[in-house]
Amino acid sequence: MVRPVRDGAAWQGWRAQTVCAAEEFFAREDLDRTPWNAVFDFGSEVVGRLELSLAPDGFPWDAPLRVEAKFAESLYELRRACDATPDGGLSRAWLQDFVVVVDGPVTRVRFPRRAAFRYVRLRVWGMVRARWRLAGLFCVTETSAPPPPAAIRGGENALDAEIASVSVRTLLWCMQDVFEDGPKRDRRLWLGDLRLQALSAYSLWRGTAGFSAAAALVRRCLLLFASAARDEDGAVPGCLYPRDPDPPEAGNFLFDYQALFGDVLLDYLDATGDASTARDLFPAALRQTRLALAEIDPATGLFRDSGKHWLFLDWKDGLDKTCGEHGVVVYSALRTRELALRLGFHRETSDLPARMAKLRRAARAAWRDPANGYFVSGPDLQVSWASQIWAVLSGICPARQAPSLLRRTLTDRVIVGTGGPYLCNQMLLALMRFGMAREALSLVRSFWGGMVERGATTFWEVFDPQDPFRSPYGNPAMNSGCHAWSVPVWFPRKGRCLGRRR
Amino acid sequence: MVRPVRDGAAWQGWRAQTVCAAEEFFAREDLDRTPWNAVFDFGSEVVGRLELSLAPDGFPWDAPLRVEAKFAESLYELRRACDATPDGGLSRAWLQDFVVVVDGPVTRVRFPRRAAFRYVRLRVWGMVRARWRLAGLFCVTETSAPPPPAAIRGGENALDAEIASVSVRTLLWCMQDVFEDGPKRDRRLWLGDLRLQALSAYSLWRGTAGFSAAAALVRRCLLLFASAARDEDGAVPGCLYPRDPDPPEAGNFLFDYQALFGDVLLDYLDATGDASTARDLFPAALRQTRLALAEIDPATGLFRDSGKHWLFLDWKDGLDKTCGEHGVVVYSALRTRELALRLGFHRETSDLPARMAKLRRAARAAWRDPANGYFVSGPDLQVSWASQIWAVLSGICPARQAPSLLRRTLTDRVIVGTGGPYLCNQMLLALMRFGMAREALSLVRSFWGGMVERGATTFWEVFDPQDPFRSPYGNPAMNSGCHAWSVPVWFPRKGRCLGRRR
Repeated sequence: MVRPVRDGAAWQGWRAQTVCAAEEFFAREDLDRTPWNAVFDFGSEVVGRLELSLAPDGFPWDAPLRVEAKFAESLYELRRACDATPDGGLSRAWLQDFVVVVDGPVTRVRFPRRAAFRYVRLRVWGMVRARWRLAGLFCVTETSAPPPPAAIRGGENALDAEIASVSVRTLLWCMQDVFEDGPKRDRRLWLGDLRLQALSAYSLWRGTAGFSAAAALVRRCLLLFASAARDEDGAVPGCLYPRDPDPPEAGNFLFDYQALFGDVLLDYLDATGDASTARDLFPAALRQTRLALAEIDPATGLFRDSGKHWLFLDWKDGLDKTCGEHGVVVYSALRTRELALRLGFHRETSDLPARMAKLRRAARAAWRDPANGYFVSGPDLQVSWASQIWAVLSGICPARQAPSLLRRTLTDRVIVGTGGPYLCNQMLLALMRFGMAREALSLVRSFWGGMVERGATTFWEVFDPQDPFRSPYGNPAMNSGCHAWSVPVWFPRKGRCLGRRR
Repeated sequence: MVRPVRDGAAWQGWRAQTVCAAEEFFAREDLDRTPWNAVFDFGSEVVGRLELSLAPDGFPWDAPLRVEAKFAESLYELRRACDATPDGGLSRAWLQDFVVVVDGPVTRVRFPRRAAFRYVRLRVWGMVRARWRLAGLFCVTETSAPPPPAAIRGGENALDAEIASVSVRTLLWCMQDVFEDGPKRDRRLWLGDLRLQALSAYSLWRGTAGFSAAAALVRRCLLLFASAARDEDGAVPGCLYPRDPDPPEAGNFLFDYQALFGDVLLDYLDATGDASTARDLFPAALRQTRLALAEIDPATGLFRDSGKHWLFLDWKDGLDKTCGEHGVVVYSALRTRELALRLGFHRETSDLPARMAKLRRAARAAWRDPANGYFVSGPDLQVSWASQIWAVLSGICPARQAPSLLRRTLTDRVIVGTGGPYLCNQMLLALMRFGMAREALSLVRSFWGGMVERGATTFWEVFDPQDPFRSPYGNPAMNSGCHAWSVPVWFPRKGRCLGRRR
C-alpha cells in the first residue's frame, strides 16, 4: 500500500511512498466504515483482471459491495483526473477507471474488464454493519504468450539484464487475442507494431517449445490484415479490431505500415519456413507494393505526398517525411521481390529490381548532400534520423557508406532526432543489418536503459529523456506505458541475440 | 428524452420536461463529439438491464466506448449526488450509477447489472473520429413472475384501475430469484414482505395458468427461510441472501417477522393445498412461536422488550411497540395452532388455546382504555394504529368491538398513525377480516391513490403525503420506489378481489 507523494526529482514528479505491507492492510478490520480508499502498488506492470478476496467476519452481508477502481500504469496517470483529457486528444475511454457492484454474498469480486496497470486506487463502499476484511488483492493476469524461456539472461551487466527482463515483460503483456499495440492503449492490432513484435517473438522463442504458439499468433495477425483489405483497392489497413466471427473492422490506413506488409510476411517465412501461408498471402503483399509504387512521381522517380495518405514514420514533431517514405517504398518493394523469389513468383515481380535501382539513383541524386553525405528531405533540406535510416535500409545510401552514415547520425546533436521507441527500433534494424553490434548495444543501453533507470517495468510508447510529459495526444496519461513497438528488436542477451541480423 | 426542471408544485420539487422524442434523438449524427449527456424517461418503472444499440456510420471504431449511466426511480434521485449519503445511513452502493466500457467493435452494449429505474442519465464517450448513431435504447426487463392475467381491470373508476395496474407492476418487478423487497433496494428476501407479496400473488394468479409458478416462488422462499434458521435456537432470519448452491446468508433477525413465519405457511397451505411442504416446515413454524412466547413475562402475561430483539411493526417515529408486539405474538401463536390443526399436530400445540386466552385477557386488562376502547402502549399510554391493528388481528380486542375500533382509528387524527405502506397493509388485513370492504376501498383510494396521483408507476416503500422527503435512512434517494410491502393486499378489481378475507 503506497501513497503518491510529490517529488521534483522523480520522473513526472511523483514518487510512491510505502504506507504498509499489503499483509498489514489485509489484517485491518475496520473496513466496514464506508467508504475507504487505498492505493496499491503491484511492483511492476501487470495485465489482467483485478480480483478482491473478502473475508467475512461475523455480521453478515447487508448491502451491495461497490468497488471503484482506477488503474494506472504510472503515478502521474493515477493522480491525473480521467476527465481532464483535452478536446481533440484520444478518447477518455482508454483511461481505466471502472466500477464493480456486487449484489450477492460473495468472497471474490473480479473486475470484468482487463486492465493494464502497476498502481490501482480502490474506493470501496462495503456493507454498513457487516464486518469483513480484505483478505487479498490479485491481478489474474492474462496473456496468450507461451511461457518465455526459463533463463532470460542479460548481457554484461545488471542494466543489460534488466533491459532484457523488461523487454520480455512488455512483449508478453502485448500478446493477447492478437498482438496488441498496448494493453492499455491501443488495445488493437497495428501493422507497424506487429512487424517489430513478431521479430522479438521469433527471437525470444526460437528453438524453444513456445515457438510455434508465438508464430501462430503472428500468422493469425497476418491473416486478419489480409482479410481486412479494402474492397476498392486491396489496401491492408494500418490497424484493425478483430470481430469474431465476423471479418475484422479495419481502420487507420497508414501508408508506410501498409507498404511493409510484405516485409512482415518475409520475416514470418524466414522464421517459420511456412511457405504455404506465405504463398497464400503473397498476392496481398504484392498488392501493397504496387499501391506504394503508385505514389512515386513517374516524372522524377521520387515519392511525392499526394495528401491522400497518413504518412507516419515516427511521432517526431516537424519531421519531413518525403525522403523517409521514399526509402520505405524502395525497401518494401525489394523485400517483396525477395519474398517472390523464395516462393517462385519471379515473373510477377520481374520489373522490380530495375525499377528500384532507378528509384535509388533518383533519390541519391535529389537528396544526398555531397558535402556531408547526409540525406535531406523537403523544401528546408531537413536532415533527420528517419531519412538516414530509411536511406540505409533501402540501399539508397550505398552499403559501404552506411555504417559511417549511421554512426554520425547517432551522435549528431544537430539533426532532427527520434520521436521515440518506434524509430529507435528502425535504427536498431539498420545497425543490425550492418553488424554494428557495439553501436546497437550502446543505443539500447542509452535509450531503453534510460527508461529502466527512470523506473520503467515495461517499455513506454513515448520516451523523451528531456521531456517527462511529452505526449502526441496532449495528455501524458494517454501514453501507453507498455507498448508493442517499444520492445527493442535487439537487446544484449547471453548466448543469443534477440532480434534479427541480415 | 427529458430535462429535469425545478417545480415547486411537483412531488419532491422536480418535473420532467420533454426535450424530444427518442426517435428524434436517435436520428442525431453528432454523437461522436465526446462526451454527450442525455436523460431518458422510460415512462414507468422498469427492472432489467439497459441496452444501447449502436449504428456505426462510416468511419470505423477507434477507441473503447465508455457509457456512464445513472439509473433512478425518481427525478429527485436522479438529481441527487450518489455520494451525498450521510454517514450512518444505508450503503451508498444501493444507488445505481455504473460504468460500462466496451473494447471491441459492437453494435449492442448491455449493462451487466440489473437496475430498477424510470429515468436514466447517460454520459457517453464515443469514439474520437468514428461516426455512429445511437439507434435504440432498451431495458431488457427481468422478472420471474408468470404473465399476469390478461384482463387486469380495476374497480369503479380510473383511479381504481390505475391502482390495480400499479399494484401488478410493483409485484412483478419484485419477483426475481426470490421475492425481493425492492429491485433497487433491498434486493433480497424479507420475511415480513414475503407475507404480503405472497397474499397478493395468490390473489392475482388464483385460478389462472400462472398460479403454480407464483406459488412455487413462495415455496422456494419459505424453504430458504427454514434452511437459514439460526443454529443455536432455530430462529428464522428476518431477511436473507440466496447463495446457491450454498445455504443462504441470514441477516437481520426481526422479532415480529420471525413470529409470523407460521402465518405465512398457513396462507401458503390455504392457497395451494400443498400439505406436504406445510408439514415439512411445521416444526420451524412452531419453533418461531415458542421463541416468540419466550418474550412474554410469566408474571404479567404481557410482552416485555428484553432489548435483545429488533422490534419492527412499522417505521413510524416514536412508535411504542409493546402492545403491538404482544398482539403479533398472540396472533402468530393462534395462526400456528390453526396450522397445526389442519396438519394433524394437535398434541404439539395443545397448550396454545388456553395460553392465548390468558394473554388476551392480560392485555385487555392492562392496555384497554375503558373510557374510549383504545389500546394504549408504553409508559406514555400511547394510542397508535399499530396497537389497534394488532389488538384486532390477535383478538385482544373482542370481535364485536373491532369494526368500530378500526373505524375510529382510521379517522382519528390525534393518534399515532402509520409510517407507511407496511402498516397500511396490516390495516387492510384487519379490515378484510371483518368484511369492511368500504373502509378498505376508502383507505386504498386515499393512501395508494395518493401515490398514483403524485406520479407513482410502482408503489413506494415510503409515502407520507405530508412529507415528500421522508426517509427512514436520512436520504430520500435511498427509499425504494418499487417495494414489495407496498403492494396493497386488497385492491378494487372487477370480478375478483385481490387479497384475502377471513
